[in-house]
Amino acid sequence: MTGSVFLVGAGPGDPDLITLKAVNALKIADVVLVDDLVNPEILNHCPQARIVYVGKRGGCKSTPQDFINRMLVSMAEKGLKVVRLKGGDPFLFGRGGEEMLALQTAGIHYEVISGVTSGIAVPASLGIPVTHRALTHGVTFVTGHTQDGEQPNWSALVDSQTTLVIYMGIKHLPEIVKSLLDAGMSHEMSTIAIQHGTLKTERHVKAPLSMLPMAVRKENLGSPAIIVIGEVVRLANGERLLAALNIAA
Amino acid sequence: MTGSVFLVGAGPGDPDLITLKAVNALKIADVVLVDDLVNPEILNHCPQARIVYVGKRGGCKSTPQDFINRMLVSMAEKGLKVVRLKGGDPFLFGRGGEEMLALQTAGIHYEVISGVTSGIAVPASLGIPVTHRALTHGVTFVTGHTQDGEQPNWSALVDSQTTLVIYMGIKHLPEIVKSLLDAGMSHEMSTIAIQHGTLKTERHVKAPLSMLPMAVRKENLGSPAIIVIGEVVRLANGERLLAALNIAA
Repeated sequence: MTGSVFLVGAGPGDPDLITLKAVNALKIADVVLVDDLVNPEILNHCPQARIVYVGKRGGCKSTPQDFINRMLVSMAEKGLKVVRLKGGDPFLFGRGGEEMLALQTAGIHYEVISGVTSGIAVPASLGIPVTHRALTHGVTFVTGHTQDGEQPNWSALVDSQTTLVIYMGIKHLPEIVKSLLDAGMSHEMSTIAIQHGTLKTERHVKAPLSMLPMAVRKENLGSPAIIVIGEVVRLANGERLLAALNIAA
Repeated sequence: MTGSVFLVGAGPGDPDLITLKAVNALKIADVVLVDDLVNPEILNHCPQARIVYVGKRGGCKSTPQDFINRMLVSMAEKGLKVVRLKGGDPFLFGRGGEEMLALQTAGIHYEVISGVTSGIAVPASLGIPVTHRALTHGVTFVTGHTQDGEQPNWSALVDSQTTLVIYMGIKHLPEIVKSLLDAGMSHEMSTIAIQHGTLKTERHVKAPLSMLPMAVRKENLGSPAIIVIGEVVRLANGERLLAALNIAA
């Protein structure tokens, strides 16, 4: 008898932004493999389960992905019900895709339980909709930190005129901003960096694009953070009424 | 005494993909304003509330946005606790931003409760992660249907090499595909259109880019649907093991 693996999104931080389906999976779990980015309060839903921490925060020591994949497979093969709990959504920069492929290859039954992604919910918590039809036709989610060191095509992203939401972008922020400026984005473009979004410990820095790296350094804003670049940032708390008038006009 | 408005995401369809926070808001609501795209089962969380349907499905008759904004304000001014329940997430093509601005302008207390967006969860339900680090640096969400008739910069989006997720794209699919081909995207690029994703009534059509419009017409696939264009679509059920081998190689 083999078990199952649930690849579960824990949401952006606020423990109430988890889905009913995720809670149901946690309640029946024998073991839960947890990332650093998951709010510990969420584990109150699974007092019966063994908890295994497999932190993966950018730059720090973490459990290698291959090792996590093998753990998921071997636990399921022992007949256990395993929850792999990840911050945000498991399939948006969560490496859930890699874990799914490992489970498929091993013939393990699995289910993906999508979560609320930080890239939408964190700006929303400050009154920023990542899309607004008067300001943009869409939104792009990218990572600022890739293992191979490759960069997104920043020039094309500037031309796309979509809102840019950058995950794990603090470390390489100066290079990212330079690339965007080189690609012709305005020095004055509205930007915001938000640490610990949707939590009481939330802190953020709002600045015109060219000033953002300095502002982030000055405020000592660290990871995990979400960076939003685009006209919609004008709607953030504080400038919102003015922005409303500008849009209406 | 004024009331409050909760701008709430109902998730992609599966009634268990709603958040605890959304359920809590529904439980205390006096009145709930609901879109067509919301699964009626979700209203089981608020038997005490008055339900007002304000459908907005693309192309069909619907309640004008200004009228909805005014309803939200006037109900809150009467002291009611109002939930504005939207399919997916309220701030990703949900016009939640417009409703928020109307509430700010009127001085109404409001809260945004983010939801699981269809653009991530619907592909995930078929085993498609919208990002996979071996295949793309990111994902872009756009609408195929804009009120002003303007189009996204498809050429820049092709150059960005991000996965493209198109909301409300069925109606204009032939034009969208032509724009992507004209911009140099491969005729063979993997694509999928998914109707009623995460529900039992789910249907989908998978095809190379240039064949997608014909395939969608042949299968009579209609709205609401999510269209995904990108290498990650190769991971969909059926081709997944082969895809896994290709990635590993």
